Amino acid sequence: MLDTEFERIGRRLFAEGLVSGNFGNMSVLGEGGYYITRTASYLDLPGQPVFVPFNGDVPAEASSEYRVHHEIYLKTGCRAVVHAHPVYSVTLSLVRDAVVPADSEGKMVCPVIPVVDGNPGSGELALNIGDACRKGRVVIARGHGTFAAGETLDEAYLLTSATEHSCRILSLLGRL
Amino acid sequence: MLDTEFERIGRRLFAEGLVSGNFGNMSVLGEGGYYITRTASYLDLPGQPVFVPFNGDVPAEASSEYRVHHEIYLKTGCRAVVHAHPVYSVTLSLVRDAVVPADSEGKMVCPVIPVVDGNPGSGELALNIGDACRKGRVVIARGHGTFAAGETLDEAYLLTSATEHSCRILSLLGRL
Amino acid sequence: MLDTEFERIGRRLFAEGLVSGNFGNMSVLGEGGYYITRTASYLDLPGQPVFVPFNGDVPAEASSEYRVHHEIYLKTGCRAVVHAHPVYSVTLSLVRDAVVPADSEGKMVCPVIPVVDGNPGSGELALNIGDACRKGRVVIARGHGTFAAGETLDEAYLLTSATEHSCRILSLLGRL
Amino acid sequence: MLDTEFERIGRRLFAEGLVSGNFGNMSVLGEGGYYITRTASYLDLPGQPVFVPFNGDVPAEASSEYRVHHEIYLKTGCRAVVHAHPVYSVTLSLVRDAVVPADSEGKMVCPVIPVVDGNPGSGELALNIGDACRKGRVVIARGHGTFAAGETLDEAYLLTSATEHSCRILSLLGRL
Repeated sequence: MLDTEFERIGRRLFAEGLVSGNFGNMSVLGEGGYYITRTASYLDLPGQPVFVPFNGDVPAEASSEYRVHHEIYLKTGCRAVVHAHPVYSVTLSLVRDAVVPADSEGKMVCPVIPVVDGNPGSGELALNIGDACRKGRVVIARGHGTFAAGETLDEAYLLTSATEHSCRILSLLGRL
Repeated sequence: MLDTEFERIGRRLFAEGLVSGNFGNMSVLGEGGYYITRTASYLDLPGQPVFVPFNGDVPAEASSEYRVHHEIYLKTGCRAVVHAHPVYSVTLSLVRDAVVPADSEGKMVCPVIPVVDGNPGSGELALNIGDACRKGRVVIARGHGTFAAGETLDEAYLLTSATEHSCRILSLLGRL
Repeated sequence: MLDTEFERIGRRLFAEGLVSGNFGNMSVLGEGGYYITRTASYLDLPGQPVFVPFNGDVPAEASSEYRVHHEIYLKTGCRAVVHAHPVYSVTLSLVRDAVVPADSEGKMVCPVIPVVDGNPGSGELALNIGDACRKGRVVIARGHGTFAAGETLDEAYLLTSATEHSCRILSLLGRL
Repeated sequence: MLDTEFERIGRRLFAEGLVSGNFGNMSVLGEGGYYITRTASYLDLPGQPVFVPFNGDVPAEASSEYRVHHEIYLKTGCRAVVHAHPVYSVTLSLVRDAVVPADSEGKMVCPVIPVVDGNPGSGELALNIGDACRKGRVVIARGHGTFAAGETLDEAYLLTSATEHSCRILSLLGRL
């Protein structure tokens, strides 16, 4: 059933252009660990999420971004994480240290979106994202992509969608 | 059958990028009230619209935007309402008090699109949208989204699509 | 079988964003007339094209743009016409009198795309488009949309797609 | 089975907007030659790739870009090639001699993307692309499109997707 949920949300992320190719990853909290998408898997296709224990070895097939998911679960009460590569969010993160939405939904859902530094897959990025997620539910890794933490995969996806919507509007506003 | 109609139009709105995530809502006039999409439902999936009576309690599952739909039915002769969050329409609404299309379809279908103020879900927004809908059939809530009033869901969707088409062209023109 | 062909091409036009809502229309040459999509029909859904004789009454259900199709068949040897509303083509037509592609495909397929005037549905527009189609196979009606004339619906669709591709690149180039 | 693989990747390329119409082509290395998509075929539909021997006649149905594929196989150890027409990559190629991504994925996957000259279908273009593919795995033919060389069609597609992602971000950055 978890498979179906991952695929359902993955298809929405792909349809909205929030991920492309086989980029991005997702996870859901379990008992003593979390289920995460496999490395290099297409989020819009059926996959078999891998269980990563909080204490113990990390399976080789787990997404290489597992450290960030791990840190978010340790530092927040969230139960699901979505990482995507939305083009406007990534672009804004290259020129700002925080994103402040101008549209109503952004103001309600993610009024301040922090931008943090760190190389993809590194422990530094994981720590920075984990810390930032204590304050907001969506964070942008500079030049890389969004990490959204929710109660469910749906909520994490919706935060991602709202963030990109806000970033797109800000980008267009800058050119009017 | 109403379910199918809502889903059919919802899928078109999603496919064109006029709504994303679970944003947006729709309603159709009934006897002594109207059928409206549920709060937090995905418009592109089968849903079960909720009946809201003009006089009487509003079911908790009804979209939180019901006040605007209510006001539009009271003030106009329309029989269907579509509310979407199209990115170019929202962007233009943040810098203009009315949108005047430059393309042929916009000139015919929605020659002047008013922009009104008010917080999402508020009575103030509902009143402002209702008043504006007496003059035109599409209105933009500033920084929030479009409200289109038609004879049918198809017509309300087409007004939404034409509005975003016009706003996109105006946005591009400003950059040529 | 003609139905299926219209739907197949209509779905591609919609998927690429070359038409939205129920805008646009298509026709194919027949014996002593042509088959054209119905007025207000969705091009991506099964429809029943209407036969319009070159001499005789025009059925009320025929697309209101039939005059342009008529004129193109009279003035060129083409056997299929696609009319779409692609956003970049329409935008460029509002600021130029002809579009000259900068990309390789545009240079090969539609090296000069004329822009002509005339109100949608008018005889003036039909005459201007028909004349322009003698020189090139794609023409843009200013502020309105593209008309492409081909041997087949596929060819007319491909001309439309190539035209929008070229216009999008020109629009982006102007902003780099 | 090869048919299915070509269609699967072609559908992804079309869904992401990396190809439109019947533009673009793909090939996979075989024994003493390679299988390539047919000229003028839609990549998102089932097709029957044509075998082109390294020594011997080229079938008339083979994509007219076969020379570039041929040269890439001769000069690199790759086993699959994807050629697409992504709009941002083509646009940047008209104003730059090389593309240097600003985003994390681009920096990892395609840190420098050469731009080379040559007419579509010409031997000159084939030689230039082949030479450039010795250094990087993705190259842009100026004003024309991307050529990506991978171990598999998936890899060549992912390189194409990452290249367009990077070009889109660079294009947006130039306007902020």
